[in-house]
Amino acid sequence: MRAAVMRNKQLVVDEIADPVPQSGQVLVRTLACGICGSDLHTLQHGEQMVELSKESGAPFVMDLSRDVVMGHEFSAEVVEIGPDAGDNLRPGDVVVSMPVVIGPSGVQGIGYSNDYPGGYSELMVLSSMLTMKVPNGLSFEHAALTEPMAVGRHAVNRSAIAKGSTAIVLGCGPVGLAVIADLRLKGIAPIVAADFSPARRSLAETMGAHVVVDPREQPAIDAWREATGGMKQLVIFEAVGVPGMIDQAMSAAPRGTKILVVGVCMENDPIRPMLGIAKELDVSFALGYDPMEFGGTLRSIAEGELDVAPLITGRVDLDGVPTAFRDLSNPEVHCKILVEP
Amino acid sequence: MRAAVMRNKQLVVDEIADPVPQSGQVLVRTLACGICGSDLHTLQHGEQMVELSKESGAPFVMDLSRDVVMGHEFSAEVVEIGPDAGDNLRPGDVVVSMPVVIGPSGVQGIGYSNDYPGGYSELMVLSSMLTMKVPNGLSFEHAALTEPMAVGRHAVNRSAIAKGSTAIVLGCGPVGLAVIADLRLKGIAPIVAADFSPARRSLAETMGAHVVVDPREQPAIDAWREATGGMKQLVIFEAVGVPGMIDQAMSAAPRGTKILVVGVCMENDPIRPMLGIAKELDVSFALGYDPMEFGGTLRSIAEGELDVAPLITGRVDLDGVPTAFRDLSNPEVHCKILVEP
Repeated sequence: MRAAVMRNKQLVVDEIADPVPQSGQVLVRTLACGICGSDLHTLQHGEQMVELSKESGAPFVMDLSRDVVMGHEFSAEVVEIGPDAGDNLRPGDVVVSMPVVIGPSGVQGIGYSNDYPGGYSELMVLSSMLTMKVPNGLSFEHAALTEPMAVGRHAVNRSAIAKGSTAIVLGCGPVGLAVIADLRLKGIAPIVAADFSPARRSLAETMGAHVVVDPREQPAIDAWREATGGMKQLVIFEAVGVPGMIDQAMSAAPRGTKILVVGVCMENDPIRPMLGIAKELDVSFALGYDPMEFGGTLRSIAEGELDVAPLITGRVDLDGVPTAFRDLSNPEVHCKILVEP
Repeated sequence: MRAAVMRNKQLVVDEIADPVPQSGQVLVRTLACGICGSDLHTLQHGEQMVELSKESGAPFVMDLSRDVVMGHEFSAEVVEIGPDAGDNLRPGDVVVSMPVVIGPSGVQGIGYSNDYPGGYSELMVLSSMLTMKVPNGLSFEHAALTEPMAVGRHAVNRSAIAKGSTAIVLGCGPVGLAVIADLRLKGIAPIVAADFSPARRSLAETMGAHVVVDPREQPAIDAWREATGGMKQLVIFEAVGVPGMIDQAMSAAPRGTKILVVGVCMENDPIRPMLGIAKELDVSFALGYDPMEFGGTLRSIAEGELDVAPLITGRVDLDGVPTAFRDLSNPEVHCKILVEP
């Protein structure tokens, strides 16, 4: 099969072996797979990511000296049911799955594995027990957004934000936008969103932000004070992921604020603990989602509670993947590019 | 009256004006006042502390170009009841108070104020509504430990640690020891404590730690794994307060751990957010206590639930304060020195 392969820190489109479903697995044909900021990170800072994965005791760590096919935000069509894979799925079913597969060598992450190709390839194998049918009528393109939207839902759930509370979302990339959409769905108001990019601020409004600011013109905390009077409970979602953002959030935060870090910062990041102490802040870090959140997000998209259409700004085939990775550096043009092999 | 005054970044013993109780205040004679690590910090890094206080929106900020009499861990004897100060207190009562006073200029912190002298002086004024009588039979020296022990209680409460959970305490200075004592009182087991100093490790055992380690010989997390099998819920209390400790705790922490930062680090402190994200950590910062915690701690000391006697390692008069500040740099000799004016 053809795939866009990460090899020697480059993306190359090449023929690789077809995956073969093992016990409990199904073979699927990739329909659409979103390109995630984490994949851009991995291509640029792969070694650092592997080091940190090892240090944090991750259950699986890829070997960058071997091929990796990335892509973990996918929808797919079932082609073949492997042995012992139950009778829930049939060839032709359109499905999504959490990007995790259970195999003879244990659990691995689809998209960050040497053994299991991700969605930047024509075929994948999935664990049948983690594979969910896409409800009738939902397009495979929108279904492919389940994964990034579930990241937003999980961050919001983990913040334990309550109705009556308010939110600031720093950074309106796909993760920030997913957080905004889920906050809006939960009835949080106002949601104040900040991004340097006019296109991203416009998307933030579309996804549900009540107030958007260019942080060069007005700090988000000032816009929040204007909108709320400054006396409401606040959760700040940090979805930028560059050094200095956590300190900025800690400096801006009123006393007792929770800061939910969902932007992935791979670098050393200086904070001033005294700011946290003086204001008794909580800084919580969020990653991924659980199966309930993933399935719930799929249902929310299918039922129209979460409208993901505005996020999709481009489509490419496998040959277009290397260029799409470069194009994503311009937030004015692109938010989410789907790979359709 | 005589006082040990912070003046031009030095401690000098001098005659200053007696304080005069205003409306709602009482005049007291200081009986004992513990020297706190924050006071050592303030003498060395006062400007930085003032800057961070301003940035964090502290309700009161001292002016270092004017005299400050520090000392906020005190017990005292009531000398005179000011106007409108109620009839709850009488001259001769032995009392403690949260180190906060309400006056015509608003709320100020006793010990970090230009207007209200702290416990390194012969006389203070306190707000009668915040002043608590020391129960009969409790020595004024032990009562003076209410404040630092309340800091430990608050940190433990804020961690929301539940019975069945386990704890690591990094750093066995007075704050770490107060945390250990309160964890033990709440039935947390095991409590693993780490400190470079043999004397401090010995005190940690006295205060209730089940396992103590020298981190040069064994990382606390390894001792915790040995003691628990590594599968129990864990809260890590960071009570050292030097740069690098939060990162160390984040690196050692198992997935889902809460890190409670109670050690005051005044400097820039690099963390690796990716460690927090990969393990979904919570980092919470704690400061001070509330009136319920303060009063409850006084009761726990009076009832013998918290034995503070081992913490007291020295006593000085006002003339001895400058030397005592220097002596506290050696953890082998001293833990808590009481100033008895």
